[in-house]
Order: sequence, then C-alpha cells, then structure tokens
Amino acid sequence: MWSVDPRSGAQREQVAVEATAADVDAAVRAAHAARDALADRPTRIALLRAAADQLEAAGAQIIAAADAETALGEPRLTGELARTTGQLRAFADEVADGAYLGVVIDHADDSVTPPRPDLRRYKIPLGVAAVYSASNFPLAFSVAGGDTASALAAGCPVVVKAHPDHPATSELTGAALRRAAAQVGLPEDVLSVVHGFDAGIELIKHPLVAAAGFTGSIRGGRALFDAAAARPTPIPFYGELGSLNPVVVTDAAARERAPEIGGGLAASMTLGTGQFCTKPGLVLAPEGEGGDELLDALAKKVGETAPGVLLDARMREAFLAGVRARAELDGVTAPVAAGEGESNTVAAGFLTVPAERLAEEGPHDLLLEECFGPVTVVVRYADAEQVAAVLSRLQGNLTATVHLSEAEGNGDGGHGARLLAAVTPLAGRVLVNGWPTGVAVTPAQHHGGPYPATTSTSTSVGATAIERWLRPVAYQSTPEALLPPELREDNPLGLPRRVDGRREG
Amino acid sequence: MWSVDPRSGAQREQVAVEATAADVDAAVRAAHAARDALADRPTRIALLRAAADQLEAAGAQIIAAADAETALGEPRLTGELARTTGQLRAFADEVADGAYLGVVIDHADDSVTPPRPDLRRYKIPLGVAAVYSASNFPLAFSVAGGDTASALAAGCPVVVKAHPDHPATSELTGAALRRAAAQVGLPEDVLSVVHGFDAGIELIKHPLVAAAGFTGSIRGGRALFDAAAARPTPIPFYGELGSLNPVVVTDAAARERAPEIGGGLAASMTLGTGQFCTKPGLVLAPEGEGGDELLDALAKKVGETAPGVLLDARMREAFLAGVRARAELDGVTAPVAAGEGESNTVAAGFLTVPAERLAEEGPHDLLLEECFGPVTVVVRYADAEQVAAVLSRLQGNLTATVHLSEAEGNGDGGHGARLLAAVTPLAGRVLVNGWPTGVAVTPAQHHGGPYPATTSTSTSVGATAIERWLRPVAYQSTPEALLPPELREDNPLGLPRRVDGRREG
Repeated sequence: MWSVDPRSGAQREQVAVEATAADVDAAVRAAHAARDALADRPTRIALLRAAADQLEAAGAQIIAAADAETALGEPRLTGELARTTGQLRAFADEVADGAYLGVVIDHADDSVTPPRPDLRRYKIPLGVAAVYSASNFPLAFSVAGGDTASALAAGCPVVVKAHPDHPATSELTGAALRRAAAQVGLPEDVLSVVHGFDAGIELIKHPLVAAAGFTGSIRGGRALFDAAAARPTPIPFYGELGSLNPVVVTDAAARERAPEIGGGLAASMTLGTGQFCTKPGLVLAPEGEGGDELLDALAKKVGETAPGVLLDARMREAFLAGVRARAELDGVTAPVAAGEGESNTVAAGFLTVPAERLAEEGPHDLLLEECFGPVTVVVRYADAEQVAAVLSRLQGNLTATVHLSEAEGNGDGGHGARLLAAVTPLAGRVLVNGWPTGVAVTPAQHHGGPYPATTSTSTSVGATAIERWLRPVAYQSTPEALLPPELREDNPLGLPRRVDGRREG
Repeated sequence: MWSVDPRSGAQREQVAVEATAADVDAAVRAAHAARDALADRPTRIALLRAAADQLEAAGAQIIAAADAETALGEPRLTGELARTTGQLRAFADEVADGAYLGVVIDHADDSVTPPRPDLRRYKIPLGVAAVYSASNFPLAFSVAGGDTASALAAGCPVVVKAHPDHPATSELTGAALRRAAAQVGLPEDVLSVVHGFDAGIELIKHPLVAAAGFTGSIRGGRALFDAAAARPTPIPFYGELGSLNPVVVTDAAARERAPEIGGGLAASMTLGTGQFCTKPGLVLAPEGEGGDELLDALAKKVGETAPGVLLDARMREAFLAGVRARAELDGVTAPVAAGEGESNTVAAGFLTVPAERLAEEGPHDLLLEECFGPVTVVVRYADAEQVAAVLSRLQGNLTATVHLSEAEGNGDGGHGARLLAAVTPLAGRVLVNGWPTGVAVTPAQHHGGPYPATTSTSTSVGATAIERWLRPVAYQSTPEALLPPELREDNPLGLPRRVDGRREG
C-alpha cells in the first residue's frame, strides 16, 4: 500500500503490503486467542487509557502523516486526535461504570406457578470484531476510532481493515494501540491492522469474526452487509453508509434570520471540504424574499470559500462528475458553480431546484442522493405541501435539521412541532436551529439512522456504541461460587443493576 | 385454512382463507395508519392489560380450540394462557416503568472544545412489526405471544402470520386482541392476522414492514432472514430457529445423583411430547458406573412415558424419519426406541453414541442436529478431552446445562467453573443442575443464543424483548416547547434517566 499525497497526487512511500488470505486468517486467529486476556475489565480500562496516552505521545508524527495523506490540515487533525483520545477515555469510563453490562437479577420464587428459578443476566463480548475504517476521519473513525474503542471496551479484540487513503496513519495508530496493549500486559494482537480490498472481503467471511463495524459508501457497505448476512453463520454488520442530511428552513425563520442561516449553511456544507457524513446535502428553503435573502448570503459565503483538496483522486473525479450530472438536470441552476480548482483542488458551490421537480420519481432523483464534497442542493418550496412531498421521497438519514423562527420555536401555532414530527422518522438525530456537522461525543449522542444511514438501529458514536459488541447471557440456578463476579449476590464490583425489579446503583 | 385435529388427522372446519398479496398490503397499511394512535404510552398500557383481560374472558373457548388443533392438552394450554396474559401484563408494567426508553440527557457545555450542544436521546418505535407464529406454542409464541406483546408495548402495530397448525386459535386470539384495542379506543388494526405461506413471504417484503419476529425451523427462519436482508431497505429479523440444548453431566454428578438426573432428563425431553425449543437434545454422560446408572433411570422413566400426539402429520413423519436415520448410524444404540405409536401417536425414546464418533465431521453429524419430538441423544464420554471435542463441534444454542456434584458446585477443584466457561460461548442461557424446558418470564430471562438459536443477539422472552422494536433518536438544541414529553427538562413523566452522566430514578 502506497501512501499518496492528495495535494500533489504523488506517491509518498510504500508503508505496507496488501494482506493475503493467510495474513487475514493469522490476524483473526491471533485476535481470537487474545479474548481471554481482554476479558478482565480493569485491564481493559487500563488499555483504553494507555491507548489514548500512546496516541498523544505519538501525536505530532500521527498528525503529520495524516495531513500528508489526507490534506485535511493540521488544525482539523489536531482536533480529531483530541476527539479520538477523548473517545477512548470515555469508553474507559463506561467500562468502569459498568451499566453497559445490563445486570439483571431475579431471585428464585417458589410462591408462583410455575416456581421461578434464580436468573441472572449480563452481557458478554461477541468475539473478534472487524472494523472497516472511514476515508474521511483518519483518526476518529479509523484504526483507533469509535468502532475500535467501543469494541475493545466491550472486550472484543479487533482486526481493522485500513482505508487505502491513509495507510501510513493507520500503521502509526495501529502501532500506538499495540504498544498500549503491551504496556498493560495484554497481547499486542488484541488489535491488528490489515490492508487491501481483498483482505476486507476475507475478513467479513472469516468464521471467527463475530461482528463488524463500517463507515463508508452505500455501495461498499451494502456489499459487506450482504456478505455478512450470507455467511453460514450470519453476523451483525453495523454499517454507516450514507446520508443526505436534509434541512428545512421555514419561511418565518428565513424572514427572521436569512443571513445567519445562509452563512451557517455555507460553513457547514464546506467544512472539511464537504467531506463529512453529516454534511447538509439537501436544503428546503422557501420561495420569496426570506429565501432569496438566504440564498444571497449562502452564495456570498460559498463564493468566498477557498478551494480545497479532496481525500483522493477518485473522489475528486466522482465529485466533479456528480456535480456536472446534477447541474445538467432541467430546472437546476448553479448560483455558485462547484467544480475543478487549481492544483488538485475543487471549488465549493450549490445548486437550486424547484420543489415540484422532486414530487415524483424521475431523473431529478439524483438530487436526492448524497454527493460527497463541497456542494449542496437547495430546493425552493412554495408551501407546506411541497415540503411534505419532498420529505416523503427521502430515504433514511443520520440527521435532519429544522430552522424555525423564535415564535415557532416557542411552540406558537404548532408548526414547529409538526415539522419536527415530520422529520423524526427520517433521521437518528434531529436538530433545531443548528448544523449537523460536528458530532458531539457524549452519552446522549446517536449517530445512526434509518437505512441507508445505518444498517442497524445502533450508533457508532457515544456511550451506547458499546452495545453493538455484546450479547446477553442468563445464568439459571447457578451456585454463587461459580457465578461470574458481575452476577454475585453481594455485588463485589459495585455494578448498577436491577434486582427483583428494583434499580440499584 | 382448515383447522385439523392431529389426534385423528380429520379436518375440523375451515376457519380462514389464505391472504392474497392485496390482503397483506391492506393489513400492513392499516397497521401503519394506526401508529400514531399507538404512540400514546398510557393507551398502550391499557391495551396490553385489556388484551390480557380479553384473553382470559375468552379463555375456555381459546383453550378448547387450541387443544383440538394441537393436542397439547388442557392443563398445558391453561398454563400457557396464564403465561401469555402474564407476559402482556408484564410488558404493560415495563411501559409504565419507562426504563426501556433509554432516556439520556446531556446539557450544553460551552466550556469544552468544541462546545457541546444540548442532546437528549430516547427510543421510538420502528414501525409495523411482522410476527411469525410458532407451531409449538399456540398462545405464548403466537398471535398474542411475546413477540406481539413486546412489539405493541414498544408502540409498533403488528401483523401476525398465523401458524397453519392452529388457525382457529389464531383467529380467536386475534379477535380478542382486536376487541381489546377497540375497548381502549384504538383502531382494531393495531393487530391483524393473516394466513398462508405466500402471505408470509409478502409480509417480509412489504416496504412498510419495519422489523420481524419469528419462532420456527432453521430452514423457514433462514429463508425469511435472507429475504429480510435482501430487501432494498433491509430490516431487522429476530428469528429463533433451532437449538440442540446440550447437557453435560460430570462423572461426579452422575455418581452422586444418577437416578435424579436420569429421571429429570426423561421428564424434560418428553415434556410436551418433546416439542419444546429448549428440549435437551444432546446429553454428554460419562462412561462407567454413574453414567450406566443414569441411563438405567432414563430408560425406565422414558419407557414408562405414554405415547403422545405431535402437532401435525408432517412433524410426525419428520420425527419418525429423523429417529430412523439416527438409529441406523454406526455405533448408535437405542436402549428405548422412539417410534410410531398407535392412533397417530409417537413413543418417546433415546439413542446413545460413543463420543469418539462425534470427534470429526462425518455422517454422525446428524446427531448434532435438532430432532423435534420426544427423543434425545446420549453421548458417552471417557474424559474431559472428549467432552471438549464434542462441545467444539456444536453450533449456537438457546441453552446449555451442566450437572455438577455438590463439591463441584461449591467450586472445589475448579472443574465446575471450567465447564461453565466452556459452555457459555455456546448458549444464551446457562443452567446448573436444572433442565432447560420451562422458560421463566422475568426481566433477567434471556431466550436467545448464538446462531442458529437466534439470528440476533436479542431475546424473545423477558423484559428486554421490547428493545427489538425500538430505535434511538437524539434531539439536539431543541426548544423545551418542542421536545417530546419524555425528554423535557422537568421530567413530567417521571422516567428513569441518565442526566449529565448521573442516573436518576
């Protein structure tokens, strides 16, 4: 695997080779053999914290490599590294808290018919997790990212399929995690990194792989989802595939805050050169004065945005072709044309289309597909029926956003509540008067949504991401001496639990 | 659909017709239209309790119909009805408790980098649930069973595909549930019943069906799982397919309690004419005196068991053919031969095989497949290595059971703990010195296990079964006036929640 500079297109260095089927098998078997060592909760907590420390210690080198491979820039990558180490430490805290184990104890009851045995339930790790790295987050959604952090937190060893856009970063972060494992006395093979397209296919089919996490395209993710489902023993595939992230701006909001909304939209859709999975890709803006003003503000700010470098040459080609195909559709205008910039850059832009063009199936459906890069589609609507008609045509999304006037936000007239109710079925995160880019890593976060946003109901960000790598097991009538410590009567680990229906801790 | 008496093989009456594609579409659309009405939690609580009341009111008629169609007998069906109404009421209590909503609130924090927005997460219903009834539980795993109860509790309208073995019971229980809906002011279409194989296929493919629950065979369940995964928009398929339910009896346990274990095994494997999904189908018993005594007790008790009627003629044929094929394998003996009885009955029996026959792949693998009906396979082993070798050949199970001596149960020598650790990866419920038939309906229950026991990590029995029909959604920076009541700051519904990391309630 060659590390390539997307700014120049030049090959930087060969940092790894594509893994053969035998390499993948060896990595999975080594991970599987490391399960028992990883079963100890205090050691896992230490591992996650040591991993954060090791990443920080190697931070300068990692950020330099990531910038050279992705052109995302040092400020963004510095923030992304902080997010990545923050995630690792947050999962350490979750493991320490122990609520994720879901301990439920029901004591025996001979007074009921039929008599009830003693039952004690908690959750155990699924086994080896396969993690497929994202192109657009070389740190936070890659080798040391949220999938890996949550899987290790759950007690699952991980084999990561690195993204070809950042093999050097992947090797460096993988090495930091393996050092962390060694530091806390775990086998380094609790985490391995493999490279190559074929290795990814081998990985999803490997009998000892018990679950997979993925962040990427609909096409690639669906192929892996299908492979996971077609196995003799199907496994859960937690994929985040694609999202249009619709935004609805009410007429009252546009009249009240057009410059702010237009400027905010420009900033959000061009952030990271439009390469966020939460980029607002479809914006319903009203016809008339407020909407016109919003578009003026959007045009001004987008027009001022410096061209940026996309993650790789293939993405750049896809972006340019995608913009071209959309701009050619009947009735579509491009107030600021997205397109080719100098030195491998692309310029940001946006398109507009009247809502009636999207009322039914047809060539304009292309506008309802995600276009990765700095472009968004503004749909001009005349009334609430047109908004409803466009929303009814959408697939699932990671996010849905509404911009309301102050009065609508206060509940006046019920329009705000109706709009929220209309977009909630479309998304896993609903925002009011904000922008979807920037995903807070907190327990309440949900980063997922109806298909194709994700292939499951789970999240890949936030505390509950750990749930993906666990399965419950119940012990019936098991002598105290043989119970795992998590389920013992005197609660030696001090876990929060539900005992005979009452919550404790 | 004809209701058939399995005791005589005679057709009783035609109780319904097979649903056409148009019928299925109408049922799903009507269910979908009832979603909003079902969204109200107090109404759902009332619905579940009214459903239990209606089933009790119609109990005599339902039990008579179920007995006539399934030959399971009035005592068993009386118990099953109590379990069914108990489940409905238990889910009403879960809805009232509200912990299942998983409310997490993180307040905005401007002091961190980047600033954190206000985020509030809870769970919402997925949409219309398809439920596929089981043959062997005409009440508790059928129209008004655990899948339906948990889906309604979650707020999902249900379309049930009735099992062809009990169409009359399905119609009666479906009518009771629809009466309950009307009684609490809900559209009756929150629950519909459809009949017919093709209707089941139409149902899983319907675009408005959002999830499915299934209890049945590996073949049928896998076909539906594959169809669910192959949809343009894949949906979760919660299938319980098949389970061997291995039992390991240690030599010390056999020496200590051979008559008790042999007798208990006979009772468990013949209960309900061996038609439980938790029937112990493979028993590892030691060679030598203790094991011999165990087999003597088993033979005596199985030999005394009265022949029973299986659920339908096809199952009877499959049982007889399955027993025949197993008995013909080299080295297999039949101390008590299972087989044909008089008047459409079958006689219970068991087979034995030396452990070395199962050490590697071959024709004896048939003994590692579930054989539905009153038969079990006793594997005689010489040592711990042979036990480990046989366990390593097993697929996933609903249950795994170990029988230990008193000293082993007290932890002496570590053998009990090692055995528990060895069987835990194989099952979702682990029992010590008990029998897996009889599944307590309590919050700590887990009725599921590694594939093919279930196609997901979820349970179909117990409080957490409700999780299958929900997905999380997070609201970001949403004005109080527009938040759902579940997420409001002052917690008007008194829900247990996690606020800024602290558990409340």
